[in-house]
Amino acid sequence: MNLTRRLFAEWLGTAFLLATVVGSGIMAERLSGGNVAIALLANAIATGAVLCALIMTFAEISGAHFNPAVTFAAALQRQLPSKEALLYVLVQIIGAFCGVAAAHGMFGQQVFFASQHMRTGPAQWWSEFIATFGLLAVIFGCSRSRPNAVPFAVASYIVGAYWFTSSTSFANPAVTLARAATNTFAGIRPMDAPGFIAAQLVGAAAATFVFTWLLKESP
Amino acid sequence: MNLTRRLFAEWLGTAFLLATVVGSGIMAERLSGGNVAIALLANAIATGAVLCALIMTFAEISGAHFNPAVTFAAALQRQLPSKEALLYVLVQIIGAFCGVAAAHGMFGQQVFFASQHMRTGPAQWWSEFIATFGLLAVIFGCSRSRPNAVPFAVASYIVGAYWFTSSTSFANPAVTLARAATNTFAGIRPMDAPGFIAAQLVGAAAATFVFTWLLKESP
Amino acid sequence: MNLTRRLFAEWLGTAFLLATVVGSGIMAERLSGGNVAIALLANAIATGAVLCALIMTFAEISGAHFNPAVTFAAALQRQLPSKEALLYVLVQIIGAFCGVAAAHGMFGQQVFFASQHMRTGPAQWWSEFIATFGLLAVIFGCSRSRPNAVPFAVASYIVGAYWFTSSTSFANPAVTLARAATNTFAGIRPMDAPGFIAAQLVGAAAATFVFTWLLKESP
Amino acid sequence: MNLTRRLFAEWLGTAFLLATVVGSGIMAERLSGGNVAIALLANAIATGAVLCALIMTFAEISGAHFNPAVTFAAALQRQLPSKEALLYVLVQIIGAFCGVAAAHGMFGQQVFFASQHMRTGPAQWWSEFIATFGLLAVIFGCSRSRPNAVPFAVASYIVGAYWFTSSTSFANPAVTLARAATNTFAGIRPMDAPGFIAAQLVGAAAATFVFTWLLKESP
Repeated sequence: MNLTRRLFAEWLGTAFLLATVVGSGIMAERLSGGNVAIALLANAIATGAVLCALIMTFAEISGAHFNPAVTFAAALQRQLPSKEALLYVLVQIIGAFCGVAAAHGMFGQQVFFASQHMRTGPAQWWSEFIATFGLLAVIFGCSRSRPNAVPFAVASYIVGAYWFTSSTSFANPAVTLARAATNTFAGIRPMDAPGFIAAQLVGAAAATFVFTWLLKESP
Repeated sequence: MNLTRRLFAEWLGTAFLLATVVGSGIMAERLSGGNVAIALLANAIATGAVLCALIMTFAEISGAHFNPAVTFAAALQRQLPSKEALLYVLVQIIGAFCGVAAAHGMFGQQVFFASQHMRTGPAQWWSEFIATFGLLAVIFGCSRSRPNAVPFAVASYIVGAYWFTSSTSFANPAVTLARAATNTFAGIRPMDAPGFIAAQLVGAAAATFVFTWLLKESP
Repeated sequence: MNLTRRLFAEWLGTAFLLATVVGSGIMAERLSGGNVAIALLANAIATGAVLCALIMTFAEISGAHFNPAVTFAAALQRQLPSKEALLYVLVQIIGAFCGVAAAHGMFGQQVFFASQHMRTGPAQWWSEFIATFGLLAVIFGCSRSRPNAVPFAVASYIVGAYWFTSSTSFANPAVTLARAATNTFAGIRPMDAPGFIAAQLVGAAAATFVFTWLLKESP
Repeated sequence: MNLTRRLFAEWLGTAFLLATVVGSGIMAERLSGGNVAIALLANAIATGAVLCALIMTFAEISGAHFNPAVTFAAALQRQLPSKEALLYVLVQIIGAFCGVAAAHGMFGQQVFFASQHMRTGPAQWWSEFIATFGLLAVIFGCSRSRPNAVPFAVASYIVGAYWFTSSTSFANPAVTLARAATNTFAGIRPMDAPGFIAAQLVGAAAATFVFTWLLKESP
């Protein structure tokens, strides 16, 4: 598959992912009458369901990363040249913002507006480290032994990770940046994004290190 | 498989789909005590679950379109002769109304009654465009690389799309027409149906155009 | 597989199915604070999830019917000798009552007590006809084209059918009889059971008739 | 795969399982506004979703037991040498406590604190017997006839078992011990753990006995 089409697939897939995360968050908040558990349950189920469909749709085209942390890990393992990895990350970030804008359009809101949702502190950074470590663990483990199950495993993991972390598991730098541009259920204050992204990248690097050892061929 | 049986399968499958959408909407509204998020969550899960089972049941017989937008895209790609496509659309629409009537019967209501549920405006049309574009994207992408997963991918997508669009993602002209004949949770005012259907057909055509390019064999 | 072990599998599987339906109904009613939609959602998800696991567990042993309507349809199609079918039905009914007793034990209630939950009238009978027709349709359609997906398709269908029918889709005569012996969320008055069972058997026969035609080999 | 890496996988997988059970319980309790049904639904869905992903990730490395009852049954069937089984159990227990500590860290709580959540009595012990018997039944039945479906079958079963038992189905001695160290939604009083563990081991032994007979090769 040529690079243009792979980049297009990453752009489109990441846009749909963000439209889902932000759009379902808006819908959930509007309808849930203040019960945040119901809102988060709907948000998590919608995200997982669409993510599964998107990975199935785009996996054979671009690998369906939709996530700079995943692309970063692939580059660390030399599965992707550095230059292509940078382009992947670039279109993922652009796609993420396009997805937020698309969601705002679907709910009659302005294109972008900065979030005021505070998400910071060691507990949340630890959450993002764990969430991203786990995401990469699932990808590494399943890719090797049952590649056809990766879409389902990743989506399942994310549904659960919305709940078992105090940060609701962003686990994705492009998602983090774009969610700073929505002042809705899924938002994060722009000033809090760097802490999240740093924790995510450390988690991705740690998982790459651990699973390279764990999955290496026995001598 | 001969055409009569294929048309019967499209009729029966679309009828069950609408019975599910409308029936579960009625049940959800009755039981949810005014919490619309719980009602929509039940409605979305029920729809996705039955849709998955229906596609698995009928895919080998008729292709399990149950949706004129899908049939329209198949005809655009010349996978289905125009005459057969028209018959598909006809039995889908008839099936959709039969499904609504069946649901009304299950809940002790009259056969048909016009909806008064307003669903209109650019935000909702944009939602239907996105929803139908995404549905076709999932079908095109998965059909090519993992056809056995199509039922699951489509159903997952629909569960999420109920939540990430402000229109709750009809994404289906036959569904739109028939839901104008129920004044319950899932209804849409008859006067609002044409706007939805136009947006759906534009979305389907756009997805067909984009994915024909994206998935063409590399030279 | 010899008949004794097949009958044991039908007994054990049906017992677990009923323990799930009744037990999760009790738990849901206790915890849901009067919101019946939340209770039914939990009841439906628990039933579908366990049913899927049970069919996967026992399919290769006994066929995993757990349902006299399914056994009846298999006998109509001469897939099972009449004498074995009768024994299947017998152990399914015994297993169903054992499952109800097991659930009552898990929640500290007496072994059996007659339900006072009224479920009757044409709308509910029509619901049971539709529900059982659909269940058999899913089994017939999937068994032929994708047998490995049957557990998932059946479970998905049942999750949705809890919601789209006004009867919450018993769709199983053994389940109906045993649920008459619990005065909890999942119960049905003993006097209402015959109407349900009649509608179920008519639905099963109709589906067998229709799908024998729909799926016959083309000449 | 060498033993060190298998033990590491059991440690890491069990830690993630407990982080999920305890973390999602804390999140659910915080957000659900006192509606325990919503909290348990989120807790069950999160647990099942992550468990499915974890089994897919680690099955090819260590077998993905994450549960002394499963390891015990494997040792009874001589699939695992006794010495390895003891090491498995040891790292599972250590992993379980690490997971609880990780979850407490994610939610800003102290490392460990003893639960005051009373869970005792014959109804709960009977629940744990049934839950563990069923878990092993699913593992034995699926492992033989459709090994690729085991992760999904086990996770589905657990989602349902949270609801159909009055104990919310711990079904795992390592989980039981570690949940005694959290005074949150998922906790159990330390003094109640031995009763749960005894019931679990009896259930596992009973299932091993029954399924060895049920699944033995026909002569």
